[in-house]
This record gives sequence, structure tokens and C-alpha cells, in this order.
Amino acid sequence: MGAVKTKRMPRAVREQQMLDAAVEIFGRRGYMAASMDEIAELAGVSKPLVYLYLNSKDDLFTACIRREAQALVAAVRSGIGPDQSADRQLWDGLLAFFAHTGAHPLSWSVLHLQARTHGETFAAEVTAMREEIVAFVTQLIVVAAREAHRDPDLPEREVAGLAEALVGAAESLAAWANASDSVTPRQAAATLMNFAWAGLSDLMRGNAWNPPAA
Amino acid sequence: MGAVKTKRMPRAVREQQMLDAAVEIFGRRGYMAASMDEIAELAGVSKPLVYLYLNSKDDLFTACIRREAQALVAAVRSGIGPDQSADRQLWDGLLAFFAHTGAHPLSWSVLHLQARTHGETFAAEVTAMREEIVAFVTQLIVVAAREAHRDPDLPEREVAGLAEALVGAAESLAAWANASDSVTPRQAAATLMNFAWAGLSDLMRGNAWNPPAA
Repeated sequence: MGAVKTKRMPRAVREQQMLDAAVEIFGRRGYMAASMDEIAELAGVSKPLVYLYLNSKDDLFTACIRREAQALVAAVRSGIGPDQSADRQLWDGLLAFFAHTGAHPLSWSVLHLQARTHGETFAAEVTAMREEIVAFVTQLIVVAAREAHRDPDLPEREVAGLAEALVGAAESLAAWANASDSVTPRQAAATLMNFAWAGLSDLMRGNAWNPPAA
Repeated sequence: MGAVKTKRMPRAVREQQMLDAAVEIFGRRGYMAASMDEIAELAGVSKPLVYLYLNSKDDLFTACIRREAQALVAAVRSGIGPDQSADRQLWDGLLAFFAHTGAHPLSWSVLHLQARTHGETFAAEVTAMREEIVAFVTQLIVVAAREAHRDPDLPEREVAGLAEALVGAAESLAAWANASDSVTPRQAAATLMNFAWAGLSDLMRGNAWNPPAA
């Protein structure tokens, strides 16, 4: 009556399983209420093994944030064909963003909500990802301005502000779309694209909205 | 040699002074690092008096969030003339928003960052304020659609999405403007208004951006 031989698995594979389980539990329960027992059980490993591999609840949470942030950035980047027009690149990027956040709502909850609601260290991880995305969107807008026939004379600060506005709008819409049963990634992307592109497009043509005198 | 007679102050006045000091310290140091000693010192009262009036650090923080959220909503509402056109109302509201967040950067830090990075209870306070602002912006967009000569056939979900996008963009821009020395409230408002109104304006005229076939 030999003992059932446990399949030995490479550490890297086990770690990914632990992170999968952790994202689900952190996303579902919140950081505070999430228990290492539940994470270990969902991952199908012992709790000591989770501590051996990932060290602490804090380190496990940080590893989740890092992995999920990289996955989101990779999804957006790979959704975009570099030879497309600027509006097509923006559309493809938004669609990839909403498809990813919609398909992984618990991952998005970890990044957008949990990581920002439990202290500056975790928040800094998300800020780094956000800055990467803002820089990427800024570049897209600069390219769009260059494509837009005329002299691309949007001042750099204006472009930086537009990228911040667009990223903030996308974050807000992703949380809204995930909270609703009926909003598809395509609908969320179309809402933002309609809002953003028509506005940007007018700006590129020099059709600014003029504020009343101060 | 009589003791200097301490001026007696109504409790309500003292409490506001404590909240003023608390917003400054929470905004500057972050929730975790903020000390009740420093708050009491800045308010010019004893620490036991702070506890007597506001009960605990958590309760003090909650009171700060509530007061600052109400002040922000009031500032935006009072910036808007109800008889103005929809684009003028939106401009006035944005200008009031960026003027308030720019004049009170520590208050905005408490609301946008601190309140969201220290647990679900505090985050819920900010969420309630945010929902009020989204509802208000949604109403503005509905009115704008009604004003925009044609049949206001933007579906309700589209309008809700646009309001979410606009509020998310404004939050993002306020943090960006406050992090920069050179962005004025008027510039931040103009950036967002250009982005948003030109886009909304096209939408109202039925000039939607058309996504490529799925």
C-alpha cells in the first residue's frame, strides 16, 4: 500500500498557481479580509509552502500587483498594431484594455481598488504601471498630432494633460463596466473612443473650445 | 500673578480647528504616519481634547473626509449658474472643481488618495461623494443632449458612461495639476473642456466615431 506519490511540480509553476489563487481571493474579499488559509486551499498547497515561496501576506500581495500590472500593460501593448493610424491604435488599445479588465475583473479590482486602498507601498506599484501607460498614450497623441496634417503645435503640457484625462476616464469606465452586467468591453471602448477621439480630433484640427473671458 | 485666562471657545469652533489641522497633517504625512500629537499641536489644543471631541484617529479621519467631500461638492455646485447653457455650466463646474482642488491640495490628497488607500470604510465615504457628482454630471449631459437641437437619442447607458469618463478624467487631471507647479486651474479646466466638450458636442450632433467591424 504505497502512499500516493504527489506529482512534483517546478517551483515556478507552483508560484503561479499561488498567485492565481491570491488574485482571486484578494480581489473577491479585499486585502484585509483575505486569509492565507483560503489562498493556500484554493491553490491546492499547504499554507507553510505559500509562506516558504512568497514570504508574507504583504509580499504575496505585492507579487500579485506586479504580475497583474505587467499582464495588463502587455495586453494593451499587444492589442495595438504599430502600423495602424493613430485613431485605430487608440481604439485597439482601449478595446484591449476593456477586454482585459472585463475578462479579469478580480485582477482589475486588485489593481484599481485593493492596491490603492491599503497603503503607499502597494499604491506605488500601481503608480509605476500607470505612468508607463500615460507615457504610452502621450506618445500616441503626439503621433496623432503629427499625422493631423497641420503643424503639430499642441503644447507638450496640453498633450500630457490629455493623456492624463484619457487614462483617468478609462480607469473610471472599467470600474463602471465591471459593475454592470450589460456593458461589453466593446461598448465601453466605443463610449470612451467617441468621447475622446471626437474631442481630440477637433483639437488636432485646431477647433478648440473657447472658455469665456476670465 | 493670575494665570492667563484661556479664551473659551464654542465646541463647534474648536472642532473645526481640529479638523483644519487634521486635514493638513493627514494630507501632508499620509494617514499612517500622521500623529495625533502633531494634529493637536497644530490645532493649539491638548491631545486629550482631540480624543474627547473626535473620539479616535479613525473617527477624526472620517470626519475630515466627510467635511472635505461636502466642501468640494458645495464648491462645484455654487460655481454653476443654473440658467447658463450646458457647455457654460460644464465649464463653470470644471473651473470650480479645479480651483477648489488647486486651492486645497491637501484636502484633495485626503479625498483622492488617502481616503482610498486606507481601507474600505474610508473609501466608501468618497464613493458616496463621487456618485453624487456623477449623477450631477449625468444630468448636465442629459440637458445638453436635450438642448442640442435634434432628438436626444443618446441611450441612457451611453450618458452614464460619458459621465463616468468625465469624472474619472477630472480626478486624474486634478492630481496631475496639483503635482505640477505650472498648471493653473483654468488651464486644467480648459484641457478637459476641450477634450470633453468637443467630443460631447460632436456626439450630440450625431457625429459618432465609428469603430471598425468586430
